[in-house]
Amino acid sequence: MQFHHHGYVPTDPRLQTAAGAGLARPDEIPDEVDVLIVGAGPAGMLLAAQLAQFPTIVTRIVERRPGRLEIGQADGIQARTVETFQAFGFAERIAEEAYRISEVNFWAPDPAHPSRITRTARTDDDPAGLSEFPHLVVNQARVLDYLAEAASNAPARVSVDYGVEFVDLTVGADGAPVEVELREHDPAGVSRTRRIRARYVVGCDGARSRVRESIGRSYTGGAAMHAWGVMDVLAVTDFPDVRLKCAIQSQAGSILLIPREGGFLVRMYVDLGDVPAHDRGAVRSTPLADIVRRAQAILHPYTLDVRDVAWWSVYEVGHRVVDRFDDATEGEVRLPRVFICGDACHTHSAKAGQGMNVSMQDAFNLGWKLGSVLDGRAPASLLRTYSEERREVAVDLIEFDKQWSSLMAQGAEDADDPDTLATFYTSNAEFAAGFMTRYRPSMITGDDAHQHLAAGFPIGKRFRSAPVIRVADATPRQLGHHARADGRWRLYAFADRDGSALREWAGWLRDSADSPVRRTMRPDADLDRVFDVKVVFQQRHDDLGLLDAPAVFLPQVGPFGLTDYEKVYAADESADIFDLRTIDRSGVVVVVRPDQYVANVLPFSARDELSAFFAACLASATRRSPERE
Amino acid sequence: MQFHHHGYVPTDPRLQTAAGAGLARPDEIPDEVDVLIVGAGPAGMLLAAQLAQFPTIVTRIVERRPGRLEIGQADGIQARTVETFQAFGFAERIAEEAYRISEVNFWAPDPAHPSRITRTARTDDDPAGLSEFPHLVVNQARVLDYLAEAASNAPARVSVDYGVEFVDLTVGADGAPVEVELREHDPAGVSRTRRIRARYVVGCDGARSRVRESIGRSYTGGAAMHAWGVMDVLAVTDFPDVRLKCAIQSQAGSILLIPREGGFLVRMYVDLGDVPAHDRGAVRSTPLADIVRRAQAILHPYTLDVRDVAWWSVYEVGHRVVDRFDDATEGEVRLPRVFICGDACHTHSAKAGQGMNVSMQDAFNLGWKLGSVLDGRAPASLLRTYSEERREVAVDLIEFDKQWSSLMAQGAEDADDPDTLATFYTSNAEFAAGFMTRYRPSMITGDDAHQHLAAGFPIGKRFRSAPVIRVADATPRQLGHHARADGRWRLYAFADRDGSALREWAGWLRDSADSPVRRTMRPDADLDRVFDVKVVFQQRHDDLGLLDAPAVFLPQVGPFGLTDYEKVYAADESADIFDLRTIDRSGVVVVVRPDQYVANVLPFSARDELSAFFAACLASATRRSPERE
Repeated sequence: MQFHHHGYVPTDPRLQTAAGAGLARPDEIPDEVDVLIVGAGPAGMLLAAQLAQFPTIVTRIVERRPGRLEIGQADGIQARTVETFQAFGFAERIAEEAYRISEVNFWAPDPAHPSRITRTARTDDDPAGLSEFPHLVVNQARVLDYLAEAASNAPARVSVDYGVEFVDLTVGADGAPVEVELREHDPAGVSRTRRIRARYVVGCDGARSRVRESIGRSYTGGAAMHAWGVMDVLAVTDFPDVRLKCAIQSQAGSILLIPREGGFLVRMYVDLGDVPAHDRGAVRSTPLADIVRRAQAILHPYTLDVRDVAWWSVYEVGHRVVDRFDDATEGEVRLPRVFICGDACHTHSAKAGQGMNVSMQDAFNLGWKLGSVLDGRAPASLLRTYSEERREVAVDLIEFDKQWSSLMAQGAEDADDPDTLATFYTSNAEFAAGFMTRYRPSMITGDDAHQHLAAGFPIGKRFRSAPVIRVADATPRQLGHHARADGRWRLYAFADRDGSALREWAGWLRDSADSPVRRTMRPDADLDRVFDVKVVFQQRHDDLGLLDAPAVFLPQVGPFGLTDYEKVYAADESADIFDLRTIDRSGVVVVVRPDQYVANVLPFSARDELSAFFAACLASATRRSPERE
Repeated sequence: MQFHHHGYVPTDPRLQTAAGAGLARPDEIPDEVDVLIVGAGPAGMLLAAQLAQFPTIVTRIVERRPGRLEIGQADGIQARTVETFQAFGFAERIAEEAYRISEVNFWAPDPAHPSRITRTARTDDDPAGLSEFPHLVVNQARVLDYLAEAASNAPARVSVDYGVEFVDLTVGADGAPVEVELREHDPAGVSRTRRIRARYVVGCDGARSRVRESIGRSYTGGAAMHAWGVMDVLAVTDFPDVRLKCAIQSQAGSILLIPREGGFLVRMYVDLGDVPAHDRGAVRSTPLADIVRRAQAILHPYTLDVRDVAWWSVYEVGHRVVDRFDDATEGEVRLPRVFICGDACHTHSAKAGQGMNVSMQDAFNLGWKLGSVLDGRAPASLLRTYSEERREVAVDLIEFDKQWSSLMAQGAEDADDPDTLATFYTSNAEFAAGFMTRYRPSMITGDDAHQHLAAGFPIGKRFRSAPVIRVADATPRQLGHHARADGRWRLYAFADRDGSALREWAGWLRDSADSPVRRTMRPDADLDRVFDVKVVFQQRHDDLGLLDAPAVFLPQVGPFGLTDYEKVYAADESADIFDLRTIDRSGVVVVVRPDQYVANVLPFSARDELSAFFAACLASATRRSPERE
């Protein structure tokens, strides 16, 4: 955490200094905003937290609910999401209060006594050590709390406008703002209609999204529905794995059991079967008592004495995805002005624990793009990449969830192999943890021409952190954890053996007119406003002189022109990043997007390629409003 | 973190449910309180946070300052203190924003050019791996913020009464409350005198303590004073170790350089020399410019361009300790009613980074004792152990600080060995980290009759945590981190190989009339109100059945009678606690005090000894007011 460089900070350093739109934020939604976010669920809140990092942008987020979410809904937090939370500054805190999934156990009918369940497999949840972050379970309400804190602590001080309903929108002609109709409900029950203008609108308003409707997008995919009862219970049981995640298949049906945070609460997803086409929602009136009885039957011979029910629901889902995640047209005819994120784009079962995670990654993908365009550092064409990149992820997700759901539903006795479920779970661990997303080459993702120089950083996949030593204070650090969700690009220079190629490249980066850093630098701003440039040396940290690092890695920042010492790293002898990530020791530059995805891998000599890559996706600092292009 | 067992908690689980005194806490200080704490520095705030865990106790803390501390003062946080913060729930958060001391570097005159300093040694701050916690530097103001949060989140909801001055007190006859005169200053500048009664008063009011005066205690020790200039600066420098803790000795004097949190701020303690007897505080008018100039001369040939000064001060210190830390008389004549903690008891230099730490440990030692006595679970004679235990620690501290200060002051050229300072620092690492405190046998600390059964848990020293696997959720944990600063005693049962001796002991502990657990159990309270009883098995976690553990380790808690699953552990194969702490595999019980110190080590067979130990320091649950005894 870096602070004090603008002067001494006497309070919590997590409270960033207010700036721009955050200085005098009105309580009332203004008539004109830059971004209107509809819906304060995980996608909407993450987007708000991201945009709040851009002081120049006026962001408002409206939510139909009268106040904070208290209960229920999603709870699975995959490692990729915890990694994302780290960039927003609250991974440790949320992990501390969450349930941590360490193992997953599988139960099925005992072959000797098929009416009784027995444990068939015990599996490590992350056998390959995919991430330094854990797999967590914590209530969605707490996720929203932390994101709300991040949004309101950020320079633009964004907070939710509760009791405000989205009614409709009209996308104006080229460059004109989107006209939005809202309905504000005050606590006394009085409502009034508002019409505001927004440069961009983002619908994070769930499976029944009105924003989606208003831009005429619709689901494709099967209409087949499956029903589940879900309950969060405080119970006394002699089922020995009650504090472990379990997939339980019995002759009486199946349960996905998820222990919850705090050590006592347990969530059970109880399978209620396929919903007949003529059901018309009748399944949703299944009483709680039926769900409890069914759970008791499934757990036989173990007992389940439910003492308190914190929340329960019955829901039906199909597997569907929207054709496009924005209002743009194919080709170059019209750039997007309205976007949809999360459940508004894709629906599927809750049992793979993916929904909330993928939704937040949708928002993380979109957030920095909107911020960069509105801040004038990127062309508006960047916004087309959102739907292109995220729809493919959604399609993969639906496919995964279909397989997992049908395996869960078919029951152990139908499978050829009693370990089918366990095998599927283990072999898809990387997907389930959120690390299989790989974006295709585009204006923000390079091709694999130089991939071999850093094989451990696959282009298009998220930058996987590794241990290093920070030279200035000789402390072990995770290289990736220094990167915050601040909308900046990262250039990680892995030095050549003697540092000569590094030095030459660093000089070019700092001083050449072709350098992306120089080209995007504003005269009134610090060197590292758009790019965060770091170096990792091969030498031991105590063989290096901190101040011998090239100047681009020791920028002068803030009003006092103080040196930022936290960009110079050395390999950690006990876990050498050059070996761990298969980095060529003749030196390489790894380019990482603001959403932590590897954008390119280039040798120091490929200056023209580096310049050209950023010429396409970042505007020159002298051009003030590239988003009007 | 455990919660939800009294029903679903919809908000931050760190906010404990208010109870007792916390339910309707008045803004005004009431006429009668249980504990009045004078002074809201580190000792006072830690004591408040500890007492706030006891809902039945009315605690008030008064502070002369009109509001929160913003700047300056102590900043060193030794590993023992971080360990303590863990028990109060904020170790991770404060570590995240703190500077972490990894190495300490030593600089001295270059033998070839004595006017220039050169690096003479680079040392690891914790070469022996004394603790899983780091050594930190963070502003005292933030320490107070976190303690204030812990106090106001605790059941009794304690918060500071600012603008209230302690004037005087009178200790009444046996059993009568202490009469206290306070002066309340409101923000408008109006003052009024208040007289209140307190069962106990604790002076945490610093080196010029008026509480100390009011009980007639005074310092012993030398009157020799030494002066230091201290400044927190934002500066540009070419001194390469500016982000490492450094002891710098030069021909122009000496500096202790401490990098501060946030990556930019640096604290320098600049030696101003011994103060002549006739100085009468004149040294305190040394201007800032002189201190900066002296720092620049010491750092030669490196430059120091101070751009901003966040805080600075000049202070003089002697090495002094008070004869007793309470108002009791020797022998059994009068039990203590008034205590002093922290700087009120001991003063010394700031340079060993001990003051704030030892002060908080004073309070941690006293807090649970006051809480236990007022709650009726311990006899009032327990309170005599506070002064007995802590004064010895203070005497050791003064001795350590005298040596360190004189080594720092004498200059490298006077030492026989240029590495004297580095050698002293390294060989005293355990003391400096706060782990050398060892309490003598007393009513709360056993003798070493059975110490050999668990050599790695020395009786009288703090319980050193080690890795284990929690059986219920198969997660790796630190055994010690489950223990919160909740005033409870811990019994750690390390199981024998086949668990038969354990099982017999556990049955006795749960059911026998002689068992300390049974004897202190109130009919209306959970089994684990006074004792937190845990087991560690030698087997792998997946070879154990969670529900096969003896019932005392699976207590039913809260209104729903839910099972607490977090008391059953297994050794971690990759770091076996039985080996790490040299625990006899025939089984042993380790008794740990509420302030984390090992109180006793006993075999399972030593039931009588266990009963006798607690008969002396814990009251039977049927006796309601043992503190009147």
